[in-house]
Amino acid sequence: MARYTGLINKYREYLPVTDKTPVITLNEGNTPLIKADNLARAIGRDDLEIYLKYEGSNPTGSFKDRGMTMAVTKAVEEGSNAIICASTGNTSAAAAAYGAKAGVKCYVLIPDGYIALGKLSQAMMYGAKVIAISGNFDQALDAVKEISTNYPVTLVNSLNPYRIEGQKTGAFEIIEALEDAPDYHFIPVGNAGNITAYWKGYKEWHNLGKCSKLPKMMGIQAEGSAAIVKKQVIKNPQTIATAIRIGNPASWEKAEAARDESKGTIDMVSDEKIIEAYNLLASTEGILAEPASCATVAGIIKLKDTLKQNAKLVCILTGNGLKDPDSAIKYAKSPVEKTTSELKDIVKLLNF
Amino acid sequence: MARYTGLINKYREYLPVTDKTPVITLNEGNTPLIKADNLARAIGRDDLEIYLKYEGSNPTGSFKDRGMTMAVTKAVEEGSNAIICASTGNTSAAAAAYGAKAGVKCYVLIPDGYIALGKLSQAMMYGAKVIAISGNFDQALDAVKEISTNYPVTLVNSLNPYRIEGQKTGAFEIIEALEDAPDYHFIPVGNAGNITAYWKGYKEWHNLGKCSKLPKMMGIQAEGSAAIVKKQVIKNPQTIATAIRIGNPASWEKAEAARDESKGTIDMVSDEKIIEAYNLLASTEGILAEPASCATVAGIIKLKDTLKQNAKLVCILTGNGLKDPDSAIKYAKSPVEKTTSELKDIVKLLNF
Repeated sequence: MARYTGLINKYREYLPVTDKTPVITLNEGNTPLIKADNLARAIGRDDLEIYLKYEGSNPTGSFKDRGMTMAVTKAVEEGSNAIICASTGNTSAAAAAYGAKAGVKCYVLIPDGYIALGKLSQAMMYGAKVIAISGNFDQALDAVKEISTNYPVTLVNSLNPYRIEGQKTGAFEIIEALEDAPDYHFIPVGNAGNITAYWKGYKEWHNLGKCSKLPKMMGIQAEGSAAIVKKQVIKNPQTIATAIRIGNPASWEKAEAARDESKGTIDMVSDEKIIEAYNLLASTEGILAEPASCATVAGIIKLKDTLKQNAKLVCILTGNGLKDPDSAIKYAKSPVEKTTSELKDIVKLLNF
Repeated sequence: MARYTGLINKYREYLPVTDKTPVITLNEGNTPLIKADNLARAIGRDDLEIYLKYEGSNPTGSFKDRGMTMAVTKAVEEGSNAIICASTGNTSAAAAAYGAKAGVKCYVLIPDGYIALGKLSQAMMYGAKVIAISGNFDQALDAVKEISTNYPVTLVNSLNPYRIEGQKTGAFEIIEALEDAPDYHFIPVGNAGNITAYWKGYKEWHNLGKCSKLPKMMGIQAEGSAAIVKKQVIKNPQTIATAIRIGNPASWEKAEAARDESKGTIDMVSDEKIIEAYNLLASTEGILAEPASCATVAGIIKLKDTLKQNAKLVCILTGNGLKDPDSAIKYAKSPVEKTTSELKDIVKLLNF
C-alpha cells in the first residue's frame, strides 16, 4: 500500500526501532514546507527564500507528535502501561492522544490557568487524567520526574531520550524537501528539546552525505522567559507565548551546543513583537500559528539585517494557531461587525 | 525541488488550470489516512478496515482548503480583486486565508452566535472583513449570491464550480493511498458540496482505470438539519454540529445523484449520538475532529450491521476538533482535577 504511515515507518533506519517494535502512530510528520514570499516582501527582504515548516498540521496540532510517537512506541515496547508528563499544553495533548491510541493510561500535569484553551480541550477529550497544579511548568516537571522514578509510569517529557529521536525527523523532511539543508534554521526555544533535536537531525544526515551544509541554528526565546539568553534561571517566567513559558530549560546545555557548533544564535523577542508577528503571518501568508511559533517570525524580523543576501531560511511554526483561539480573538486586528440579515444593511458594510 | 506544493500542482492534469494560472496555495491536501483498528474493535466490527481521512491537517484545519485553493486561484486568474462567502465557519476561515495569501480583499458573512470559536478567530486573524448577521447560514448564502451578482466580488461558496474541482482531489489521494477505491465512503452532508466532489473524483479516476471499483457513498446529516433525509427544507436548522447546520443544501440534487448512482445512502444521526462518537473517536483513536466530522463516525455505528464483512471504509473527518474547543470542554468525559504543587498532593490523585 502506498499510504503514508507515520515517521517511524518512514525513517526507521535512522531511529532506535526494530522490525518487532509495535509502532504507535497517528500518521504524524510529513508536514508542509510553505514558501513565504509575502512575508519576505513585508519585512523588506524579498531576496530571502523563507520556508515555513507548519507543524500545526500534525495530528494533535504541534511538533510534539514527532517525539511522542517514538516515546509511546518505546514505552509500549518496554512493557509500560502508563505514561506521565508535565506540560504547557502541547506535550499533554500529544501524550494523551498517543496514550489513547496505544491504550495506556496517561497522566498530565499542567500549570493551572496558563495553558491555552484548545490544548486543555485536547487532553480532556483524549481521555487523559489532567491535573492542574497551582505552580508553573518547572514545578510540574520536577514533580513528574520524581513520580516516574518512584512509580510504574514512564516519563514522556523531553527528558525521555526517544522524544529527541522522533523530533529530529523534522530536519530529514526539510533536507528532502529542499534537497539540502537551509542556510538558517529559526526555531522557538522553550524547554530547548526541539532545537536540540533538529540540530541532531541535521548533523546525522550531513554525516551521511544527504546535505552539503549545516544551517546556522537561530533559537528564539520570549523575553519574559529567556533563561538561555539572560544566562539565568527565570523563577517566574511570563509571556503570552505559553508554549515557551519555561524558566529552566531541560535541554539548556544542548541548545547552547547547537548554537555554538552551528555558529548560530539564541536571541529573544518581546510579547509585543510576538503579537505583531502573529498578525503579520496570518494576514500576509494566511497561516495561523500559535504565539510561541510566531516568536520565530519576530526573531527573523529582529535579525533580518544580519542575514546574508539570498539566503534560504526555514522557520519552524511549532503549533497550530487554533490551539489558542482566545489569543487570536484578543489580538486580531479585524473586528467582527454585526448587522441584520437584510441585504441593504449588509451592503452598507461592504464599501463597494 | 522535491517539496510538496499543494494539490493544484500535484493534480494539475485533472484540474481546470494551465501553465499560466497563478496558483494560490498554502500546500493544502496530502492529508493523512489513518487506520482506525481501535474504533473498529470498539464498535464490535473488527473485521472492518476503517480509514480516517483527517482533513483537519489542512492549513486552515478543514477540507474547505481543497476547494478554496482552486476558487481563489481562478478568481485571481480572472482578474478579481475581492471574494465573498457565507459560512458556518470553515469556509470563512479558508476564504480569509487564501484571500490573504493572494492579496485580495475577503468578505465573510456568518450566522451570529452559531460558529465555533476557533473558526471565528481564524477569519479575524487572516484579516477578512467578518460580518455577523442575525440570521442563519441559508439567509447569509442568499445575501452573498445577490451581492456577487451585483458587485465586483467573486462568490467562493460551493456554488463556485471550482470549489468542487479542488475538493475532488480528496478522492484521488484516497485511491493513491489504498491503491484502489474503498467499499464505502462515509462523509458528513451539510451544504452537500463535499459528497458531490468526492463522487466526481471517484468517477473520474474510475473512468481512467485508476481504481477497480466505486465506493457506496454514505452521506450523514445531523437530525436537526437533515433536509435531504427528510425531503424538506428545514427552516430553522439546529445541531451542535455547526459545520453542517444547513437547512437547504446548495448541492441537494447532486448529493442525491451521488447516493443513487453509487447505491449508497444518506442517513441522519442525533446530536446525542454525535457527541458519543466525538468522545469515542478521541479516546480510542487519539483523534479530535469537530462535531460535524463525528457525525460520520456516528453514522458508521448506526449502519454497522448493514456493512458487508471485511469491507474497507473511508470516513472523512472534515474539520479539526481544535476549531471548536468549547464543545470539546463541554462534552469531554474527563474532568480536570486541581491541586497544589506539592508532590504528596499530586500523588494522591494518581491512584498508583
